[in-house]
Amino acid sequence: MSTDTKAIQRAEVLLEALPYIRAFQGKTLVIKYGGAAMEQADLKEQFARDVLLLRLVGMRPVIVHGGGPQIGALMKRLGKEPKFVGGMRVTDPETVEIVEMVLVGKINKEIVGLINLHGGRAVGLSGKDGSMIRARKRMHRQADGSLADIGLVGEVESVDPEPIRVLEAGGFIPVIAPVGVGSAGETYNINADLVAGDVAAALLAEKLIHLTDVQGIMGDDGKHISTLVKREAERLMKSQVIEGGMLPKVESALRALAGGAQKAHIIDGRVPHAILLEVLTKEGIGTEIVL
Amino acid sequence: MSTDTKAIQRAEVLLEALPYIRAFQGKTLVIKYGGAAMEQADLKEQFARDVLLLRLVGMRPVIVHGGGPQIGALMKRLGKEPKFVGGMRVTDPETVEIVEMVLVGKINKEIVGLINLHGGRAVGLSGKDGSMIRARKRMHRQADGSLADIGLVGEVESVDPEPIRVLEAGGFIPVIAPVGVGSAGETYNINADLVAGDVAAALLAEKLIHLTDVQGIMGDDGKHISTLVKREAERLMKSQVIEGGMLPKVESALRALAGGAQKAHIIDGRVPHAILLEVLTKEGIGTEIVL
Amino acid sequence: MSTDTKAIQRAEVLLEALPYIRAFQGKTLVIKYGGAAMEQADLKEQFARDVLLLRLVGMRPVIVHGGGPQIGALMKRLGKEPKFVGGMRVTDPETVEIVEMVLVGKINKEIVGLINLHGGRAVGLSGKDGSMIRARKRMHRQADGSLADIGLVGEVESVDPEPIRVLEAGGFIPVIAPVGVGSAGETYNINADLVAGDVAAALLAEKLIHLTDVQGIMGDDGKHISTLVKREAERLMKSQVIEGGMLPKVESALRALAGGAQKAHIIDGRVPHAILLEVLTKEGIGTEIVL
Amino acid sequence: MSTDTKAIQRAEVLLEALPYIRAFQGKTLVIKYGGAAMEQADLKEQFARDVLLLRLVGMRPVIVHGGGPQIGALMKRLGKEPKFVGGMRVTDPETVEIVEMVLVGKINKEIVGLINLHGGRAVGLSGKDGSMIRARKRMHRQADGSLADIGLVGEVESVDPEPIRVLEAGGFIPVIAPVGVGSAGETYNINADLVAGDVAAALLAEKLIHLTDVQGIMGDDGKHISTLVKREAERLMKSQVIEGGMLPKVESALRALAGGAQKAHIIDGRVPHAILLEVLTKEGIGTEIVL
Amino acid sequence: MSTDTKAIQRAEVLLEALPYIRAFQGKTLVIKYGGAAMEQADLKEQFARDVLLLRLVGMRPVIVHGGGPQIGALMKRLGKEPKFVGGMRVTDPETVEIVEMVLVGKINKEIVGLINLHGGRAVGLSGKDGSMIRARKRMHRQADGSLADIGLVGEVESVDPEPIRVLEAGGFIPVIAPVGVGSAGETYNINADLVAGDVAAALLAEKLIHLTDVQGIMGDDGKHISTLVKREAERLMKSQVIEGGMLPKVESALRALAGGAQKAHIIDGRVPHAILLEVLTKEGIGTEIVL
Amino acid sequence: MSTDTKAIQRAEVLLEALPYIRAFQGKTLVIKYGGAAMEQADLKEQFARDVLLLRLVGMRPVIVHGGGPQIGALMKRLGKEPKFVGGMRVTDPETVEIVEMVLVGKINKEIVGLINLHGGRAVGLSGKDGSMIRARKRMHRQADGSLADIGLVGEVESVDPEPIRVLEAGGFIPVIAPVGVGSAGETYNINADLVAGDVAAALLAEKLIHLTDVQGIMGDDGKHISTLVKREAERLMKSQVIEGGMLPKVESALRALAGGAQKAHIIDGRVPHAILLEVLTKEGIGTEIVL
Repeated sequence: MSTDTKAIQRAEVLLEALPYIRAFQGKTLVIKYGGAAMEQADLKEQFARDVLLLRLVGMRPVIVHGGGPQIGALMKRLGKEPKFVGGMRVTDPETVEIVEMVLVGKINKEIVGLINLHGGRAVGLSGKDGSMIRARKRMHRQADGSLADIGLVGEVESVDPEPIRVLEAGGFIPVIAPVGVGSAGETYNINADLVAGDVAAALLAEKLIHLTDVQGIMGDDGKHISTLVKREAERLMKSQVIEGGMLPKVESALRALAGGAQKAHIIDGRVPHAILLEVLTKEGIGTEIVL
Repeated sequence: MSTDTKAIQRAEVLLEALPYIRAFQGKTLVIKYGGAAMEQADLKEQFARDVLLLRLVGMRPVIVHGGGPQIGALMKRLGKEPKFVGGMRVTDPETVEIVEMVLVGKINKEIVGLINLHGGRAVGLSGKDGSMIRARKRMHRQADGSLADIGLVGEVESVDPEPIRVLEAGGFIPVIAPVGVGSAGETYNINADLVAGDVAAALLAEKLIHLTDVQGIMGDDGKHISTLVKREAERLMKSQVIEGGMLPKVESALRALAGGAQKAHIIDGRVPHAILLEVLTKEGIGTEIVL
Repeated sequence: MSTDTKAIQRAEVLLEALPYIRAFQGKTLVIKYGGAAMEQADLKEQFARDVLLLRLVGMRPVIVHGGGPQIGALMKRLGKEPKFVGGMRVTDPETVEIVEMVLVGKINKEIVGLINLHGGRAVGLSGKDGSMIRARKRMHRQADGSLADIGLVGEVESVDPEPIRVLEAGGFIPVIAPVGVGSAGETYNINADLVAGDVAAALLAEKLIHLTDVQGIMGDDGKHISTLVKREAERLMKSQVIEGGMLPKVESALRALAGGAQKAHIIDGRVPHAILLEVLTKEGIGTEIVL
Repeated sequence: MSTDTKAIQRAEVLLEALPYIRAFQGKTLVIKYGGAAMEQADLKEQFARDVLLLRLVGMRPVIVHGGGPQIGALMKRLGKEPKFVGGMRVTDPETVEIVEMVLVGKINKEIVGLINLHGGRAVGLSGKDGSMIRARKRMHRQADGSLADIGLVGEVESVDPEPIRVLEAGGFIPVIAPVGVGSAGETYNINADLVAGDVAAALLAEKLIHLTDVQGIMGDDGKHISTLVKREAERLMKSQVIEGGMLPKVESALRALAGGAQKAHIIDGRVPHAILLEVLTKEGIGTEIVL
Repeated sequence: MSTDTKAIQRAEVLLEALPYIRAFQGKTLVIKYGGAAMEQADLKEQFARDVLLLRLVGMRPVIVHGGGPQIGALMKRLGKEPKFVGGMRVTDPETVEIVEMVLVGKINKEIVGLINLHGGRAVGLSGKDGSMIRARKRMHRQADGSLADIGLVGEVESVDPEPIRVLEAGGFIPVIAPVGVGSAGETYNINADLVAGDVAAALLAEKLIHLTDVQGIMGDDGKHISTLVKREAERLMKSQVIEGGMLPKVESALRALAGGAQKAHIIDGRVPHAILLEVLTKEGIGTEIVL
Repeated sequence: MSTDTKAIQRAEVLLEALPYIRAFQGKTLVIKYGGAAMEQADLKEQFARDVLLLRLVGMRPVIVHGGGPQIGALMKRLGKEPKFVGGMRVTDPETVEIVEMVLVGKINKEIVGLINLHGGRAVGLSGKDGSMIRARKRMHRQADGSLADIGLVGEVESVDPEPIRVLEAGGFIPVIAPVGVGSAGETYNINADLVAGDVAAALLAEKLIHLTDVQGIMGDDGKHISTLVKREAERLMKSQVIEGGMLPKVESALRALAGGAQKAHIIDGRVPHAILLEVLTKEGIGTEIVL
């Protein structure tokens, strides 16, 4: 195949993105960033470039990131013995302080730095900035139905989109750490999946995209589901076909949709350029959730 | 090769365009449209989609088109006997009227319609609109050095970029027919290559791109020249290595550069997606002219 | 009468325009331009100056022009035999091409040039520009009630006022040729009277003014009607008192009013400065149509 | 002469104003209002309508008015014995208080009311408003060259155009009373002619127009002068051909021109519509002063 | 007490104002200025500085002033015998002229000058400016129920807030004289308390503050009332506990509240810095009236 | 002293701030926050309220904070043995990571939360956000003149004020952590005093205020210096009268002034409300440094 033919094929690829670029220009895409895509060097770099391209062609990506193994590693080094109640980490004040330092002072800054190194203009935000994410204590419902106090684990009370809007209008890509602030100023650690859903709702986002380490959602028959409507999603959760780490992702998707987001996607972040494939090509990947 | 791998390769192609999109966002690209790219159905459609993509990713394409065989065809049908002096068409008032009708009422509208059919928002302009292209009579210097009056053939006196700016600001792609207006309101037919150069200068364009039916400019040795500096271009014109239809293109390029445009390109419009290849890939094609 | 007294009388005339200038400042006036006013040299010049004055004192004139004898003349020279069905020209693809060339490439440009020559800043628009006038095939209802296909004769489907608004905001006077574009990109020739009415509706114009070659509308008794309400207009059309070329003008007026225009006028374009007399003096001329 | 012919002639008169409207649109015209035009009922009304027309066709009239017989009348009624030094009124604190009350609380309000009654939107300003006219004591140079203190008679130190600009931008016609404020807050009575000149300079006005009760300026030969250049004006003042009440008008004109105004006019306010004739017709009236 | 401690206490005082500054930023405060605060030199100066501080910390004070003894003094000097009907001054045309001169040309200018001397930027307005206060004749209801004509005493018909808004947007503090204009251009003297109430309604003010010479409103028991609701205010007026000069103040307050103002206050202008104490400290002073 | 008298005295205190509020409205004040004011609970709260008041009265405070004992504490817990070269901490990659976590994820968030808890709207920024603070390696000059590599200690290369401007325009108070980013994306720990100086220069600040734990700068004679000019400051540094921790503060002040800031202040943060006293009262405290 001659170089020229290849070049022309490349141009064809660019043109295939045309309808998607047109459809999503000026639209907000909230991307929950986590898992392999946040840990493997090559995937990280691809993620940064993908985000940048979306921004350059006129979309408005907003990143919400999660935690990861770095929190546990630091706790261990500090001699904090992790305690769990029903699989959830009991978060005492010292723990939440460590969590905040790692999320806001380390992971957030790495993502910001990564995007900027590739030529973007990212700015990090914690939920404390501008009191953007107001949170309250989340009690843990145990197997026997009783509620257990697991400390400074929070749930989103409200999201004020103003800081995000101001940064977007100034040309910046917002990168958000899932930390919330209580009414007395206390810090809450919040599940990043849920934060992403509420941010997508507050921004009336075009899409909420969860980058995960699985192929998408599987049905009762073990087969991959392309499109999942709300009612069916609820059924699958009830019948525990959807379970474990997928639960908050689907919960987040449904909250986003209920709050005004257009669509939610759960895609495989291990696939290189998963975001681009989802947004700019006809190959929708993963599972799409709609009302 | 699995579909997935192909998909990922496609994403890679999109990302290769990243630095070019970033470099040229908000920049004006004046494209002289003519030749095969304006006559072959498949090339026409590719042209429309290429222009649209450039616009969608944030660039500002401005089209200047030429005439072509349609003028001669109509003249023939009207029984006008073409007269030439030294290779240039003698343009009497009736001829200029036919030229204007074909350029403004037919070709311009076809291009506008083509872009709009693919989802763009193009608006046509004649040099008479807003008195945008003011022109004066161009005398023809004959072989013996004497000047011959060849009628209503004009040269650009000034270009007022205001109508173009207003349409661009409104989100439209301007498509310009090479007709000028004299101080008494008379119509002038002007060489489209030269109009494109002066429009590029008036807009301080980032690039002037000539779509031609050749591979670019060839040097004394018959080899293709990638980059041509002004001084060398002038030498090649003087020594008649550059000659014929290439002369006004190079003249136009030099005028554009002198007037404030950044770069001029003479590229092969017969190559599919020639514009995209030039603007969005590392494969510069054709010949680039710089000061 | 001394020169001074004359001068003072002139000032008085200016002041008589005061209430009309105040009433119509910032308002849109759609003027259907055609007939004698478009053919006689002195009337043409007066028209240009009248339009300019309206613009200068703060109104927003928008011109819609028709065709005229030039179309027939060119068709004849090209050996096209005109075919009529029930008085309407059968418009094959070649015919619509000729119509478009004459309307857009000749008549429109003459009007634009005329206004600009008097110091205005006019820009021409075809209905194809920005896909402004979307059209569909208009079938011809024959005397026996059956429908005849008369080719590419269209009726307005929708008018997008955006290109007009953008040019107006930029300080330009829009001049519109009555050509429409179909959903497949095909060209339609549309009755200019009807285009003017739909443009007036889309712009929520203050006035739609038809320049005609008659004094206005005559009633059953053959006497001139100053003001005509919708219901009466409909009666006169039904009883064929209003007939022939006056029919589309009245239909256009009623469509404009139904779509949000304030008033419609059918005035005598053979009277010098007919527009000024209508808009700026207490002598309303012609027939005014209201809901 | 038929009514129709008259109507058409009226339209012609409107069109004669076209070039003047175009030339002065958006331009500021400072009008010194005084004399007969401020005292005769019919002239007052004509003045109001003239000003309104200028505003409606897009110009920016700014009125500066003087005092007149009302000040003397009130002083007399209050038993204040007028004292003069070398023809200038000695202005003690009580006198300046009376002057301010009459200028700001009576004459200014009458003019504002008059314009508003005819449909305009005028707002009055004293030089104290926004400390717009800062003034200092003006000593009177006596015949023997010595300086006499004549009390609170001021000269303009500076004019802050901000209050005028704010009102103009809000769509109001500013009407200014010639009162100034000193650095300690004291009130100064200032010659209205001189205030008008300095206001014209501060606004970089297109025209300063003095409405007077004479035909203009007469030369050595007693003949009316149409255009007066600065050097000649200075000669005529020195040789006392220009004298008395005309002196501050010419001084004001020269200060306006020196400060950036384009032209100054001294016209006969007794002629009905003198302002319109000056601004909108080819009959320049009175004397025009230029650099 | 060391100087340092004093300084720190001063800082504490500044901080106590914090919640009030935050609450009223960008809000309009209409202040009826009159009584001792307008007559005693020290109170006048404090008033000017108080108003300035409110403006500087981001509030929008609007001053409405009354008349005072200066009107009577001038009338006396002019030999006008005051006539009263039922306690109200009969206002013939000459009287209203005197009233206007004193209000607009003297008192208004003194207040404007005072604020400007302290560094503010005040501009005076009469109700005639921009026809801001349209008024009609107010008939006087006599004890026997019959109506007496007391001349050019007016009541507010409507308030156009535009001139106030334009000056505020330009950074100026508006100072308003209680003069109204009738439909035929005639001048009306209007009770300043009532003007203040209607201005507060037209501006949807946050507060209407009446500066009076009493401590506030006393109840049946002769004790000071802190907060008065509408119904109770109406009862006290009916039972003549509220009477005399307090009547128009309470009427004005109720009109302001009915028209959209948030709160009305009647405070003791004899207390230094009464306005600041009311607006910026927790010590509400005087009587507050609410719906 | 009666409550009333106290209230009035409080109003007087508010008014004393008038000239300072006027002088500094809209001006940027860069405050280096550190020392006791950042550690004692009561001083922290006072700081938050002081900053808020400055913002509410129209100034633009920008906070730059330093580190403090928390960094050392975390390093100790993590078993990192601090190494020093010539009094400067050797900063290996692990150390800079800890520093960043504490500065950005803990201290910055505490300050942001504190201001927000008092009703402000603060947003934190690291120098990595928007690549705002670009830095390069700072070598340490040892006593013998040789340069020692002390790791990831940086010096400011450039400050891009855009993220700060965008947040300010959006109504937020920016709080900046002294972390910089190198050309390869590496993290640098930078002296907060120096960052504050360069930020003040980049913003062309009105004031740079260093909150310290001393009274200000002492001269050769051990007496407090009120105002220090550049030349004298340089002399005192050379003669080591200014030394130790005061050195970077004075260096920062001089850099700020050289870069366009108006004034620099070194004040005693142990004094309650030190900032308010400096900015809003006539008691300048501490030492003022000017060019």
